[in-house]
Amino acid sequence: MNYQHIFDQAIERLHEEGRYRVFIDILRNKGAFPNARCFAGHNGPKPITVWCSNDYLAMGQHPKVVTAMEEALHDVGAGSGGTRNIGGNTHYHIELENELADLHGKEGALLFTSGYVSNEASLATLAKLLPGCVIFSDELNHASMIAGIRNSGCEKRVFRHNDLEHLEELLAAEDIDTPKLIAFESVYSMDGDVAPVHAICDLAEKYNALTYIDEVHAVGMYGKRGGGITERDEAADRVDIIEGTLGKAFGVMGGYIAADKKIIDCIRSYAPGFIFTTSLSPVLVAGVLASVKHLKASSEERDAQQASAAKLKAMMREAHLPVMDSTTHIVPLMVGDPVRAKKISDILLAEYGVYVQPINFPTVPRGTERLRFTPGPAHTEELMAELVDALVEIWDRLDMELQEAA
Amino acid sequence: MNYQHIFDQAIERLHEEGRYRVFIDILRNKGAFPNARCFAGHNGPKPITVWCSNDYLAMGQHPKVVTAMEEALHDVGAGSGGTRNIGGNTHYHIELENELADLHGKEGALLFTSGYVSNEASLATLAKLLPGCVIFSDELNHASMIAGIRNSGCEKRVFRHNDLEHLEELLAAEDIDTPKLIAFESVYSMDGDVAPVHAICDLAEKYNALTYIDEVHAVGMYGKRGGGITERDEAADRVDIIEGTLGKAFGVMGGYIAADKKIIDCIRSYAPGFIFTTSLSPVLVAGVLASVKHLKASSEERDAQQASAAKLKAMMREAHLPVMDSTTHIVPLMVGDPVRAKKISDILLAEYGVYVQPINFPTVPRGTERLRFTPGPAHTEELMAELVDALVEIWDRLDMELQEAA
Ligand SMILES: Cc1ncc(COP(=O)(O)O)c(C=O)c1O
Ligand SMILES: Cc1ncc(COP(=O)(O)O)c(C=O)c1O
Repeated sequence: MNYQHIFDQAIERLHEEGRYRVFIDILRNKGAFPNARCFAGHNGPKPITVWCSNDYLAMGQHPKVVTAMEEALHDVGAGSGGTRNIGGNTHYHIELENELADLHGKEGALLFTSGYVSNEASLATLAKLLPGCVIFSDELNHASMIAGIRNSGCEKRVFRHNDLEHLEELLAAEDIDTPKLIAFESVYSMDGDVAPVHAICDLAEKYNALTYIDEVHAVGMYGKRGGGITERDEAADRVDIIEGTLGKAFGVMGGYIAADKKIIDCIRSYAPGFIFTTSLSPVLVAGVLASVKHLKASSEERDAQQASAAKLKAMMREAHLPVMDSTTHIVPLMVGDPVRAKKISDILLAEYGVYVQPINFPTVPRGTERLRFTPGPAHTEELMAELVDALVEIWDRLDMELQEAA
Repeated sequence: MNYQHIFDQAIERLHEEGRYRVFIDILRNKGAFPNARCFAGHNGPKPITVWCSNDYLAMGQHPKVVTAMEEALHDVGAGSGGTRNIGGNTHYHIELENELADLHGKEGALLFTSGYVSNEASLATLAKLLPGCVIFSDELNHASMIAGIRNSGCEKRVFRHNDLEHLEELLAAEDIDTPKLIAFESVYSMDGDVAPVHAICDLAEKYNALTYIDEVHAVGMYGKRGGGITERDEAADRVDIIEGTLGKAFGVMGGYIAADKKIIDCIRSYAPGFIFTTSLSPVLVAGVLASVKHLKASSEERDAQQASAAKLKAMMREAHLPVMDSTTHIVPLMVGDPVRAKKISDILLAEYGVYVQPINFPTVPRGTERLRFTPGPAHTEELMAELVDALVEIWDRLDMELQEAA
């Protein structure tokens, strides 16, 4: 039994498939997003423009957020010092849970250390509490939902992406008395399309299923108060559990679910991933509290971000770049090959100071490798023009085909 | 299928068993640990003394930590804005990984959003990479290790707590060519005892098993530089993977593993719990970096904490309180019943301004419910005397037996 050999082979496979990941070493410049410093290649900090941040609204540098974190740091210190049950339940946590419950019009909310953990812990625990539960899962669901479903040990039925007929077919095949849970996302972040929330809820009612929606890429971003697609589509009261992150549009870190009191109490009481871990630092929680409150009252950031995304998509289309259909703020550019996607990304960084990460398997299916741009309020038209020119030059250099004008 | 009814029953069970958890709502006072404000009962902030924090060395209020976090907040903003692979790999992350690798004398280290996630993700991924792996797990291992082992889908053999003979018996029963992994903790935090690290490594060598140690309650606390029990016992080079938290002695939040480069690269490349989540906020990482560096150079906090723990144990013993045998900094007081443990804790908080959480199932086995004190450098002898007097009064009030003098 040669352990080293097995580990070597595991890494070798990644190199062979061209999907060994090299992390780009950066520091963003607060007050000057999307500018950042890049340490790659160890030839010292070099200015770059970040085009792939999920801090969509630049809330990570918002003065209200920064001030709130600073105040908390000086008032209560760096960490919580304990699990929620043992010394780590601060007043900030309780306030933020109330704020998030209100954001989604739910009775309660529950914080987790990340969006990943909120999905994993909630789905695994919910399904375990329901004897014989069957989970219906969109085929493009995020890895954290897949982990939760897997770890629940329940039967799983995967429905084709956003395919209502297929979902209904699978629902109808189960006994009416079997507990059922439909798990899906609102905004699918790698393609930028949106789930038909009401139609899924119609099916859930018809077949008496619980519904669980991941709004990670939508909270803060959609709806008048940033309540996500369920707010925009006025569907929040039809979905049983709404899950979100505090690390993307809200600009900080952490995750949560919002639901009725009973469900929150069950997950609070039974989920190991919630119970047995140091709670979120109060410094982070204070920052998120400021961020959520601000985005409830202000649509300025959301509107500016949508305008940027629409502009960039239009400019790419005009330049015949293969921008994918996206009805949201995500701007994915199809490449279809991991080695090429990495090559384009490398050239952009080295020659143009543009940082956009190639997205490869297992984040997206093989053969659909892409670049994924997330323009924000701070990406100017000038930056966009430079980016599009660079991409056209590289497409040409690599002998890649541009698309016919639509 | 009545979902509400099932959720109701799940909560009812907890009430019946006397282990429904009520979180105490507090804010610690930076600069004045162990003092805090308590919001319980909603009659406004009331001063309390925290006796159950895992911020063992009060690093959460250390000026170096606070300053480093403030500087990072102003330099780079609140959050990382992405996963480690997509925009969220900051220079702080890389520096901290180097610092932690050095702390344990390993080639590399890898950060996770928490100690829980580091255990879950690392154990599940390691074991999955080794075809047919069998995991040998101490019966008192933490929930996060149990989750990782469960989620790996591997065969598991549970050995009696710190029982070398039982471990050897189980190891010997497997084929020599079967991949094997021994998972254990150094300091068991609910009892305060320590694993025989060298003896376990001897068995690992004899039977060609990998070793994985959870040093969550030992990093920062033991060894000349805070490298944990493996540093104190000079065993770090014999253990394959050392896991730790950044949320207890280091005072902030997050988790990590340290190991040789190849193992780190495998987990970095294959663990969903590492890959698919927003990376730790750079503000936290900067704070931890300051904390780890400080505790590498200073033993003052460790020594003061050990002195406090020894003092409190001695005072409790003198007062004939049933303090459990603990060879470490943990001071557990046996109660043996969940309702009584909660009652004592309630009286301490309401009448004495003393906050110590009752520890009940599933954190400890049923029938061994206890109070667990974690005196730190800032708990004075006066505070200890008040605490012991209060406990003796309550023991008497509840007709509980004190122990015979030893
Ligand atoms: C759809 C989706 N759900 C959940 C997560 C996890 O959220 P977090 O980054 O807060 O762990 C992500 C991305 O990270 C995501 O894209
Ligand atoms: C032994 C042990 N391992 C792991 C953890 C999890 O670490 P963290 O709090 O950083 O998630 C804990 C406690 O929380 C623990 O006691």
